[in-house]
Amino acid sequence: MNNERIGKLLDEFNTFGYTENGMHRITYTKEEKLAKEFFKKKSEELGMDVRFDSVGNVIARREGIDHSLPAIAVGSHIDTVYNGGKYDGLIGVIAGLEIIEMLEEEGIQTFHPIEVIAFTCEESSRFNFSTLGSKAMTGDLKQSDITQLKDRDNISLQEALKRQNLELENIHLAKREEKEIKAFFELHIEQGNRLIENNKTVGIVDGIAAPLRVSLTIEGKSAHSGTTSMEKRQDALLAAAELALEVEKAAVVERKQSTVATVGVMDVLPGAINIVPGLVNLKIDIRSTDVNSRNRVWKKVSDKVEQLEKHRNVKVVIEWKSEEVPVMMDKTIVHSLSELCENMNIEYMTMPSGAGHDSMNMSKRWPTGLIFIPSLDGLSHHPEEFTKLEDISTGIKLLKEVVLSYAMQCSKKEKKL
Amino acid sequence: MNNERIGKLLDEFNTFGYTENGMHRITYTKEEKLAKEFFKKKSEELGMDVRFDSVGNVIARREGIDHSLPAIAVGSHIDTVYNGGKYDGLIGVIAGLEIIEMLEEEGIQTFHPIEVIAFTCEESSRFNFSTLGSKAMTGDLKQSDITQLKDRDNISLQEALKRQNLELENIHLAKREEKEIKAFFELHIEQGNRLIENNKTVGIVDGIAAPLRVSLTIEGKSAHSGTTSMEKRQDALLAAAELALEVEKAAVVERKQSTVATVGVMDVLPGAINIVPGLVNLKIDIRSTDVNSRNRVWKKVSDKVEQLEKHRNVKVVIEWKSEEVPVMMDKTIVHSLSELCENMNIEYMTMPSGAGHDSMNMSKRWPTGLIFIPSLDGLSHHPEEFTKLEDISTGIKLLKEVVLSYAMQCSKKEKKL
Repeated sequence: MNNERIGKLLDEFNTFGYTENGMHRITYTKEEKLAKEFFKKKSEELGMDVRFDSVGNVIARREGIDHSLPAIAVGSHIDTVYNGGKYDGLIGVIAGLEIIEMLEEEGIQTFHPIEVIAFTCEESSRFNFSTLGSKAMTGDLKQSDITQLKDRDNISLQEALKRQNLELENIHLAKREEKEIKAFFELHIEQGNRLIENNKTVGIVDGIAAPLRVSLTIEGKSAHSGTTSMEKRQDALLAAAELALEVEKAAVVERKQSTVATVGVMDVLPGAINIVPGLVNLKIDIRSTDVNSRNRVWKKVSDKVEQLEKHRNVKVVIEWKSEEVPVMMDKTIVHSLSELCENMNIEYMTMPSGAGHDSMNMSKRWPTGLIFIPSLDGLSHHPEEFTKLEDISTGIKLLKEVVLSYAMQCSKKEKKL
Repeated sequence: MNNERIGKLLDEFNTFGYTENGMHRITYTKEEKLAKEFFKKKSEELGMDVRFDSVGNVIARREGIDHSLPAIAVGSHIDTVYNGGKYDGLIGVIAGLEIIEMLEEEGIQTFHPIEVIAFTCEESSRFNFSTLGSKAMTGDLKQSDITQLKDRDNISLQEALKRQNLELENIHLAKREEKEIKAFFELHIEQGNRLIENNKTVGIVDGIAAPLRVSLTIEGKSAHSGTTSMEKRQDALLAAAELALEVEKAAVVERKQSTVATVGVMDVLPGAINIVPGLVNLKIDIRSTDVNSRNRVWKKVSDKVEQLEKHRNVKVVIEWKSEEVPVMMDKTIVHSLSELCENMNIEYMTMPSGAGHDSMNMSKRWPTGLIFIPSLDGLSHHPEEFTKLEDISTGIKLLKEVVLSYAMQCSKKEKKL
């Protein structure tokens, strides 16, 4: 383990897309492309074979002793959000390179090949579509879901791909066969504050929460703020206020299930100081790894909606509702990682992930492990995102051990795993 | 009284600025100008002298027997909001014309001259500045308050005036001497629903509520909606929701004072479904004719702000706060109008006005009476604004009587009044 080397690599990657207002290594831009090229160069210097797949993921491969065996893959993404940080995603790619460099230094050969993957387009910032790279790799992608995608400058995904010499029609070629990969591991910053609060260095993710999302419109009646008595009002904003507080209340009682619920959007119309608001759009996001807990929150919110319709004389219309299925991580891997932490004296906890990750897709096809390391103040998607070098180092050590245990044992235990 | 004539005049005026989405007789536009010219033509046909003052008010004058006496003025405004109605303002101008026409028919001469005034720019819609015309007439206008005004197309008030052959620098010339006017009367739609609820045809306004307005910023902390536990959040939206409900609660207990309070603006940032809101701007409008009642509401809201800062770990910054002084109407006129209603068997009530009117300014300089007639469903500033012709007619009858009592008695009682 070489902390100096890790720090240097982090700095070098973060020259691509650096701005004074945070990282702008947006997917399918020149900045992301340069970072991918830099990843390719670094990997080749370590003796790996590197290829770009048809969606723009970069796959670096260190051959194993037995060429017929499936690969142990590690990785994460190298794109960022707008005004993003230096750690989210990137740290998982750097971890892969550092592991390979250590194996080289230590002269270690593995039976299975090891792959380091730099996924593209994990962030939804540009095209309102997340984890495109890993979805393409697992084949969980409908062409119809992505043909209409456009960024805020009205550039279509198709056009953005073209500028990277990629073709929308060829994205499906990025799909990999089940037999090509044995397991996938991702190291990522927590993006929350539970590890620091609990004095832990490592979080072993046992499930990835998925959101139930609802967009509601509350229809009251606009009225003059001076001439309309309080009793006669059909104030859509006050109904929305009550609903938002109910969303919070319903989630708080589900704290044991780590369920969270948020009203992130509240658009108030007409939005003038002298008009009682007649229309509010409200967007709710409820997340849990426990679908029942998530449903209990939604039930309470729905009940409140009914109450509000009666007591505040408003009409509530559900514009859309989407429910993604939470993903539970591979139990064997969670167990292996826990054992390794104990053997290595790493302070760890198992925990759910509130955010989606490339691991969420990979786990649907291959046994997958997701390791969290602490984020200072829980900050993420923010220029001040920060993780201590020694925590990164601890995460990489653990990642290396679990990779080696899968990559070396395989010759003996392949059939059992 | 000729209801058919009133209906026809209403229709003729409402050809200026008519659209399928309501009236657009916006101040200092071609449509308002045409309506003013039509008002001039109608007044001249009734034998009146008509002049435009330097701010664009139109003043039609029917001379009295004694030229040295001050005028009895009646009137209101002819501009509308965007997507406005056919009655707000206009009805008070038409009432003036109808009274003159009746006096002509009946061959009545008055000792005092009678003026019918069509005020300009009463609505704040275009320049975020209300009752410009009557403020100019009373001299309650600081040049510095209006030089920077611009409309939503970035046209300055100065430029808009120029297009009407008016000069910003000359606006002060519209100020009239106290001795020129004896009393001012305005007939206006209620813009609320109290008259209809109380089965009354006429409201005699005893005071005009003025708003206490506050713009607040609530600073919490933006955070990931999936990875931030409920307990660790500094959700600015939830703080705003609690505050909005407190604004309502504090006003409801002041219902005897007819105090009302509204949160009309709530801007939520960053406003994404997957981000806990970190910043909210909230605008509050508290109105009453009773300053103490208004202050009690504000006190409760301020106390809640302090609580929220502690319990929700947010910071609340008051960006600006403005307090206008409520206006009490002339007691003698309120009494005269009440007596007239009783003599004429008109169902009436005294009531405060929640909205501002030209009368608010006029009353600071001259004894002023404001008469309300019912608005269907309390609707106003809305294409469906409606007042029954028979209610308009009743209002005009009352207005005529009060005008005559002031215009005829004057030769005898001038010194007393």
